[in-house]
Amino acid sequence: MIVISERINGLFKSVGKAIDGRDANAIQQLALDQVKKGADILDLNTGPGMDNEPEVMEWLVKTIQDVTDVQLSIDTPKPEAMEAGLKAVNKKAMLNSTTAEQKRMEALFPLAKEYDAEIVCLTLDEKGIPNDAMRRNELAMLMITQAMEYDISVENIYLDPLILPVGAAQNQGPAVIEAINMFKMLSDPTPKTVVGLSNISNGAKQRSLLNRTYLAMLMGAGLTAAIMDPNDLDLMHIAKTGDILLNKKLYAHDYLQV
Amino acid sequence: MIVISERINGLFKSVGKAIDGRDANAIQQLALDQVKKGADILDLNTGPGMDNEPEVMEWLVKTIQDVTDVQLSIDTPKPEAMEAGLKAVNKKAMLNSTTAEQKRMEALFPLAKEYDAEIVCLTLDEKGIPNDAMRRNELAMLMITQAMEYDISVENIYLDPLILPVGAAQNQGPAVIEAINMFKMLSDPTPKTVVGLSNISNGAKQRSLLNRTYLAMLMGAGLTAAIMDPNDLDLMHIAKTGDILLNKKLYAHDYLQV
Repeated sequence: MIVISERINGLFKSVGKAIDGRDANAIQQLALDQVKKGADILDLNTGPGMDNEPEVMEWLVKTIQDVTDVQLSIDTPKPEAMEAGLKAVNKKAMLNSTTAEQKRMEALFPLAKEYDAEIVCLTLDEKGIPNDAMRRNELAMLMITQAMEYDISVENIYLDPLILPVGAAQNQGPAVIEAINMFKMLSDPTPKTVVGLSNISNGAKQRSLLNRTYLAMLMGAGLTAAIMDPNDLDLMHIAKTGDILLNKKLYAHDYLQV
Repeated sequence: MIVISERINGLFKSVGKAIDGRDANAIQQLALDQVKKGADILDLNTGPGMDNEPEVMEWLVKTIQDVTDVQLSIDTPKPEAMEAGLKAVNKKAMLNSTTAEQKRMEALFPLAKEYDAEIVCLTLDEKGIPNDAMRRNELAMLMITQAMEYDISVENIYLDPLILPVGAAQNQGPAVIEAINMFKMLSDPTPKTVVGLSNISNGAKQRSLLNRTYLAMLMGAGLTAAIMDPNDLDLMHIAKTGDILLNKKLYAHDYLQV
């Protein structure tokens, strides 16, 4: 299970403040803390409505790279900010994200190819988010096919079936699990998959319980990675335990401590 | 998610003592407590090595039926004890269990038919427990086919892929998830499935965490029922949350209290 930390996001008040004040120390401490808590990748999001997003993204990347070698994910809807982030990254990056919209694929697949970056592919198109697994699977197939035309290898693709809040679209819970199962059949080797886990509990009361139950369900279906909160220790324990139960890490009595 | 309580089992010291002393009050309180904690079915097991097991099983059934209408599962390897339990039950019973061994199927399928009982079918045969999902699926198919020859409807069958302890047979964790997925294809309507959940953590340190992570994974794959411990509140919360995430029960902010 690849844990992608969602915490370096300008939407969080303290992070937004650190970004606005270019407080390198605060950002670096946050980054190191996420890695210590088990993050394999840090998702970097400047927060919404920033005028100078390319410059801010570059600053975020460089600031964090100064203190850790962990993989970085450039999370922005703006291609210019994405490219600024990619230029600054000195190792393999992740792009978060393209959709199946033609314009976005045409803008982002060339970037992913040029920088040999991994790319998150959201199963939504001009018509919005599909409400069943089958249509999600069709969009996944479309994105893989288009990516291949740009000579992007399937190993660099992370399919994201788009989790919706259980309180708002409850029937999408099983649909996303089914989609993860379907995606496994799309190619050999199987395409990687990722979700923005916390979406499931958006607006709900039992956020951590919903997040961790759903994470286990998705891991059982074959999920590769989740954008999630490494500060949630119960959730991190489920992730570790899932890897044990799926025989991906060797069982030992003290596996939680490893 | 159907919760089958594993607690009325002579293996537990206090329960064994209550059975030996024919302490009806203690057994009845235990039964009511399990129902209150969310058990949909009570699994009744006298414990091992009992000379007069048929008489004890009959006493257990009658004692519990005096105070609750909850469904009962007659859990014993001995056909005579099973029949004694079945005769005493005044509603639909569950038989736990047959295997794919010819002798057991020949002894137990006629009983299940005669009493119109549900029957747990363990995927093991004369050669033991298979070590992959495919062979479990073959044995499941064999049992369904044989049951049909006894005119038992598939609605009365619970397939059990047999969980093994993660510390002893770690590669069987994913195999059982895969088996649950495979079983869904065996018939229409899909056959019901059940597991003895606590087996996964037998001998392990983080028992509750392993149990609840695995339960969520199996629910995501389509598990119908689990023999488990309703005393474990964290585990019961996962079961309830799983039903919400699978859209089987309607989400409400206070769904844990319902």
